[in-house]
Amino acid sequence: MTNREIQEISCILEAVREQKPIVHHITNYVTVNDCANVTLAIGASPIMADALEEIDDIGSISSSLVINIGTLNERTVKSMLLAGQKANERCIPVILDPVGAGASALRNQTVEKLLQEVKITVLRGNMSEIGFIAGVQKGARGVDAAHNKDSLENSAAMVQEFAQKLNCVVAATGAIDILSDGQRMFYIKNGQAVLGGITGTGCMCTSLIASFCGAGKDYLSAAAGGLLCMGIAADLAWPKTQKAGLGSLRMAIIDELSHMQSGTIEQYANIVIPLQTD
Amino acid sequence: MTNREIQEISCILEAVREQKPIVHHITNYVTVNDCANVTLAIGASPIMADALEEIDDIGSISSSLVINIGTLNERTVKSMLLAGQKANERCIPVILDPVGAGASALRNQTVEKLLQEVKITVLRGNMSEIGFIAGVQKGARGVDAAHNKDSLENSAAMVQEFAQKLNCVVAATGAIDILSDGQRMFYIKNGQAVLGGITGTGCMCTSLIASFCGAGKDYLSAAAGGLLCMGIAADLAWPKTQKAGLGSLRMAIIDELSHMQSGTIEQYANIVIPLQTD
Amino acid sequence: MTNREIQEISCILEAVREQKPIVHHITNYVTVNDCANVTLAIGASPIMADALEEIDDIGSISSSLVINIGTLNERTVKSMLLAGQKANERCIPVILDPVGAGASALRNQTVEKLLQEVKITVLRGNMSEIGFIAGVQKGARGVDAAHNKDSLENSAAMVQEFAQKLNCVVAATGAIDILSDGQRMFYIKNGQAVLGGITGTGCMCTSLIASFCGAGKDYLSAAAGGLLCMGIAADLAWPKTQKAGLGSLRMAIIDELSHMQSGTIEQYANIVIPLQTD
Repeated sequence: MTNREIQEISCILEAVREQKPIVHHITNYVTVNDCANVTLAIGASPIMADALEEIDDIGSISSSLVINIGTLNERTVKSMLLAGQKANERCIPVILDPVGAGASALRNQTVEKLLQEVKITVLRGNMSEIGFIAGVQKGARGVDAAHNKDSLENSAAMVQEFAQKLNCVVAATGAIDILSDGQRMFYIKNGQAVLGGITGTGCMCTSLIASFCGAGKDYLSAAAGGLLCMGIAADLAWPKTQKAGLGSLRMAIIDELSHMQSGTIEQYANIVIPLQTD
Repeated sequence: MTNREIQEISCILEAVREQKPIVHHITNYVTVNDCANVTLAIGASPIMADALEEIDDIGSISSSLVINIGTLNERTVKSMLLAGQKANERCIPVILDPVGAGASALRNQTVEKLLQEVKITVLRGNMSEIGFIAGVQKGARGVDAAHNKDSLENSAAMVQEFAQKLNCVVAATGAIDILSDGQRMFYIKNGQAVLGGITGTGCMCTSLIASFCGAGKDYLSAAAGGLLCMGIAADLAWPKTQKAGLGSLRMAIIDELSHMQSGTIEQYANIVIPLQTD
Repeated sequence: MTNREIQEISCILEAVREQKPIVHHITNYVTVNDCANVTLAIGASPIMADALEEIDDIGSISSSLVINIGTLNERTVKSMLLAGQKANERCIPVILDPVGAGASALRNQTVEKLLQEVKITVLRGNMSEIGFIAGVQKGARGVDAAHNKDSLENSAAMVQEFAQKLNCVVAATGAIDILSDGQRMFYIKNGQAVLGGITGTGCMCTSLIASFCGAGKDYLSAAAGGLLCMGIAADLAWPKTQKAGLGSLRMAIIDELSHMQSGTIEQYANIVIPLQTD
């Protein structure tokens, strides 16, 4: 990521705060409140709605769509599929969070179906989830292969290849976040390992990405913007709350997001020099 | 609102803290935790239950009912209707929060049906939602008309007229909250615009109103009490948390509500001299 | 509880932090976020999943199961029963939280069915819920009897007797928590009455117990460990947040849990000399 690219990302944040895009969420009931609050804190406007009967109406007033399968069920999976298809018809970006991919056949089949029937704009998961899905896409053997790739270079190759295959942005979060649209690669080092001790930090990343995608058309930059905001918020919040504990950290992340400005991104973005992955 | 009226409202708060009325909620999964926590913080006792099979039982031990359509679906709409009808039979106050009215036909039809089949005690929404419903009640043309009324005087007339038509208390929140039972008008200036940056502050108002309605029979005063508590809590919390951010503000609102006493209301109520609206 | 028993409990906490057991929750949407966050704060790993189609898969990777009936419905009750049976087949501990037992026939029947069809490992409820269920088990008359037993000695006898009857650990929380596996009795005085002003503190206890049960085979000690952690967290958090209010207390409890170590338990466990109950 170059300084120019970071500036472009920070411009999208300004657009989010100006345009207040409506972000339609079909998401889980575990972290939904946090997702709504980070969406508001970054300047966008969340609508949570999962009833099949209103999917089309809500989609018609939204600027982006989050599909998060965290607590999926038969009823909501139907809504996810319909919402995705309607968003495709309207050229509204669709951000998929395959929470727990690999943990159950229901989740795996739902992700498969979503990838087949909906054109995804950004796929955001942790490295393990992305690796699992990429592996499944390659066949059962691929799973192990993907899981054995533990170097940054191998992970980057997997993300880029999968982004090419899906023809979308893939954003795999981890110690270093790796993003690709199949051509360009972005690497982000912001963020704290301790985030794993708070539920929903991944879901919140996805909602932030969707907020950015609602205001910017370069979806790789939009995805990077969402992850930069979360990572920087954590970097700023953790030193202030480390002594207190994880409850305080969770609150402070929302605090930092609510103050996040384009200058904050430019000042604190901790990026990695692009690797040669092909 | 006169000083005497404020005193009556603050007496209801004392009654809430003494009687600990049970407030049955059928509400959305986005802000339900906050609704439960503000209900407890103000001294009442929340029960969240939406299964049709237990609606009657839960209603039989409750002092008021919240119907909040924030994440409605086919199953829960049935429960809302039954709960409302059972509450009517038992003369238990019903507080309706038409979250997102105007955003989908499902929401509009559900609100219509609830207003037709249930005697609502207090309708609490933001000015846009109330305006939309009032407009719908007048016919499709009325929607635009309602939205064009932007002066306080016009809004007040709309609220009063709609309260008369529905024969209930209408509480429309905004920069100035406007409440009417069709005759009397209350205006509340407490509260902070920044509350729009936190999800569920409207839902929390509704739960506070329901807490008051569970302990006081003058429902206009009860509705004003709920809104005063939220507004004052925000007024006290915001100066302490403005520098920190929205996560801290959200926590501090619960803090302030948990310390709210009758004297707090009397000291900080920021009311507007009644307008002549007819 | 002896010092040796407290040491054994604190060893289980160390095992939780080392093993990070996966705790499958089928729980309510009111407090689910708090349940996930306390599970993480104590070192375990929560998975919330309630779709019947994935119950078996999720169970196969979990170390313990929480069944919390707080916002049960027809669909999720089926999942609870299946999850419980599958956990029994796999010898995975099942922790049942009968939220609101006594408040509706649906809840009572569900608890009955769960106790009949699933071998429960730990039943965790407040004294009133446990008393109600124990009474129901004895027949309708027993309910009143149970509720009239208000002395510690009578409550302890009820808990022990019920633990014998169910052949499981019963953990009844209150001013003094009473736990029994039918033989041994544990009494815990940690905790603050003010916890009743925050939603979900009972549910959080249950999730903590399940975290301990996922790492320790002595389920009475595991149950005591979960309750000690919650009680001690409250004891440490309350003096720091009493002036601020209940919002701050809620956050501080998560803070304290995230710093909880075996030494914290050993230092602050406030136990009662065992009574003679038979």
